[in-house]
Amino acid sequence: MPTVDVHTHMYPPALMRILRSRDKVPYVKTFPDQKEAGDRLVILPAEEASTGTSRGRPIGPEYYEVKEKIAFMDLHAIDISVVSLANPWLDWLPASEAASTAKVVNDDVEAMCEAHPGRLYHFGTLPLSASAEDVVAEVKRLKGLKFCRGIVMGTSGLRSGLDDAQLDPIWKAIEEAELLVFLHPHYGLPGEAYGARSGDYGHVLALAMGFPLETTIAVTRMLLSGVFDRFRGLNVLLAHSGGTLPFLAGRIESCIAHDSHMKETGALDGRRDVWDVLKKNIYLDAVIYSKVGLRAAIDASGEDRLMFGTDHPFFPPLEGGGKEWLSVTSNDRAVKEAMSGDTQGAKDIMGGNAVRILRLDG
Amino acid sequence: MPTVDVHTHMYPPALMRILRSRDKVPYVKTFPDQKEAGDRLVILPAEEASTGTSRGRPIGPEYYEVKEKIAFMDLHAIDISVVSLANPWLDWLPASEAASTAKVVNDDVEAMCEAHPGRLYHFGTLPLSASAEDVVAEVKRLKGLKFCRGIVMGTSGLRSGLDDAQLDPIWKAIEEAELLVFLHPHYGLPGEAYGARSGDYGHVLALAMGFPLETTIAVTRMLLSGVFDRFRGLNVLLAHSGGTLPFLAGRIESCIAHDSHMKETGALDGRRDVWDVLKKNIYLDAVIYSKVGLRAAIDASGEDRLMFGTDHPFFPPLEGGGKEWLSVTSNDRAVKEAMSGDTQGAKDIMGGNAVRILRLDG
Repeated sequence: MPTVDVHTHMYPPALMRILRSRDKVPYVKTFPDQKEAGDRLVILPAEEASTGTSRGRPIGPEYYEVKEKIAFMDLHAIDISVVSLANPWLDWLPASEAASTAKVVNDDVEAMCEAHPGRLYHFGTLPLSASAEDVVAEVKRLKGLKFCRGIVMGTSGLRSGLDDAQLDPIWKAIEEAELLVFLHPHYGLPGEAYGARSGDYGHVLALAMGFPLETTIAVTRMLLSGVFDRFRGLNVLLAHSGGTLPFLAGRIESCIAHDSHMKETGALDGRRDVWDVLKKNIYLDAVIYSKVGLRAAIDASGEDRLMFGTDHPFFPPLEGGGKEWLSVTSNDRAVKEAMSGDTQGAKDIMGGNAVRILRLDG
Repeated sequence: MPTVDVHTHMYPPALMRILRSRDKVPYVKTFPDQKEAGDRLVILPAEEASTGTSRGRPIGPEYYEVKEKIAFMDLHAIDISVVSLANPWLDWLPASEAASTAKVVNDDVEAMCEAHPGRLYHFGTLPLSASAEDVVAEVKRLKGLKFCRGIVMGTSGLRSGLDDAQLDPIWKAIEEAELLVFLHPHYGLPGEAYGARSGDYGHVLALAMGFPLETTIAVTRMLLSGVFDRFRGLNVLLAHSGGTLPFLAGRIESCIAHDSHMKETGALDGRRDVWDVLKKNIYLDAVIYSKVGLRAAIDASGEDRLMFGTDHPFFPPLEGGGKEWLSVTSNDRAVKEAMSGDTQGAKDIMGGNAVRILRLDG
C-alpha cells in the first residue's frame, strides 16, 4: 500500500515567474537593503506593511523546484504526492489575465506530474477573478488533464466567501466534473482577535488558531447557506483535519437548533445536518499533529475519509533536529497512535484512502 | 453519586437591580416602543447598535430567580449546581464602585446558596476594574465564603487580556487561595471574521465559533506568556470543553516548535507544553454537545478532569420539544456515549469529579 501525501504545496516555475515580476502582494523579491536575507515571499498585507529584516518570509527551492519535492518524498518514504499551489492561489489576478494565467500555471503543474509518472498528481487552481463562464471552462479543462484530481480553493470565493449564491454555477461544474475541492485557509482572522501582545508570539496565534478557524467558518457558511443541500454530490477535502469542525460540530448543531432567527426564517428547514455532510461530502486530511485531534477527525468523518498530509514545504526541520521533518513524523505518529499501530486502518489513512478516493491507480 | 452542574449562570437580584438602573451596556430594559417584547438584556455593543424588534435578547425569571434554577435542577435530576454570574461579569464597573459592588453581588449569591444548602455552590466574581489590591482582597474574602468554590472570569483581564503581567499578583492570590478559575468567553471574534452574510445566520457563527475561539486564544495567550510556568498551582476550568483547545493542542505545539521568532527570543525555552498544562492545570466542562468533541476533551485532559455542565439558562427548550432542555439532554447523552454507557467513568464526569475537585461534600 503506497504512502500518499494529499496536502503538499508548490509555487510552480510558471507562477514563480509571475510572482517575481510583481511588487504588490503576492510577490517574491530580494529587498536591496537586505540582500543577505535572500528571496522573500510576501503574501499577506500585514507582511507588506512590516519593515526591517523580517519582511515577508524566506522562500527557497523547496517551494518551487520539483526535484526538492521528490527528494523530500524519498526522504520520508512518500510514494505519491498530490501537489497543490500554496496560498494565495490565483484570485488576486486581474480579471483580464486570470483565465489565461490559470491555464499556464495548471499546465505547468500537469507537465511536472507527467515528468514523474506515478509519483505526482495535482489539484488545479481556478481563475476566480475571471468571469463565471471562464471559471467553469477551466473546471472542465482540468477534468481532462491526466494528472489533475481536484481543485485547491481558498475561502474568499468571488471576494465575499463560499456562501455566495453566485458560486452555484461553479459548484455545479465541479460536482459534474467529479473533482474534489481542497479547501485551504489563507487569511486567518482579523488581527485584533489575538490581542495587544500577539507580536510577542511570532506567528503562533495566527497559524495555530486563525488558519483552522478560517476553514471552520468557511465550511459552516457553506452549510448554513445550503450549498450541501443544493449540491449533494459536491466533495470537499478540508485542510488541517477540518480546522476545528470535528470538535465543534455538536455545538454548531446546537446553536442552529436554538437560533430564533433561523427558526423564524425557516431557511434551514429540511436541511442536512453537519454530521451527515461530514460523512458524505467532507474528507479530512490528517494534518493535526496529535492523536487526540486525529481521533476526533476520524470519529466525525470516518476512517475511510481521512488522508495523510504533510503541509510541505511549510514547517521545515528544526535546527539540530536532523534531516527529517518533525511536521511529517508527528502526523505519521498520530495516525499510528489513533489507529492502534500500523494496522490496515492506519495504512488506509496513510495512502489507501487517497488511492481509492482520488483514483491514483488509473 | 450526585449529578453536578458546574456551568450554570445567573444574574442574581443584586446585579439585576444594577443592570435595570443602567442605560449603557450591560443593562436590562423594557423599551417603551416595544413593550410587548418585555425585558431585554443588552450585553454587547453590537446589540446596542441594532434597532427594531430584536434589540438585545429576552430575559426572564430563569435568569435571576433562584427558584427557577432549583426547578430546572429538579426537572433534570441535577443534585448540585455551582452557579456563576452570566457574562459580562463585573469588569465594566466604574473603578470607584467596583470593589464594593463585587462584594454586594458575591454576598447575594452566597446567601442564595446558604438558603439551599447542599444544592447550590458558586464561583465568585472579581472587581477587575478596581485596584490590584482591591482585587486581591476580594479573592481572599471569597476564600472565606462557605459556598464559594472558585472565580468566574472573562478573557479581558485588566482590559488587555490574560497574558498581561500585571495580573500576576491576582494569579498569585488565586493560586494561594486554591480557588478554581472558571474561564468563560463573552466577546467572541471581530464581526468581520464571519463575512458579509453572517446576519442571515442569526447568532450561529458568533456563538458556535466565536465563543470557543475566544476561550482558546485566551488560554493559549496565558500559555505563551508563561502564566502556567510562573503559577504551577493555578487551576483553570475552561468553558465549552476548552473551546477548541483539545483539538488544536497538537497544532499549537507544532506552531510553537517551528516559530522562528519564538526560537530567537527564547521566551519559551524550558516551558511546559500544552499537554502538560492540560493534564495538570486545566479542567474542562462537558458542554460540547457531541460524543466526538467530548471524547477529544477526555483524551486531552483526562476523564478525571471533565465535569458536566448545562449552560443554563441559555439554549432553552425548543418549541414543541417538551419541557426538557435539549442542551442538557444532548450533553448528558454525550457523556454516556463517550464513556460507554452509564459507567463509573460517566458518573464521575456527571458529578463525582466535581465533588472531589470542588470539595462539594464539605
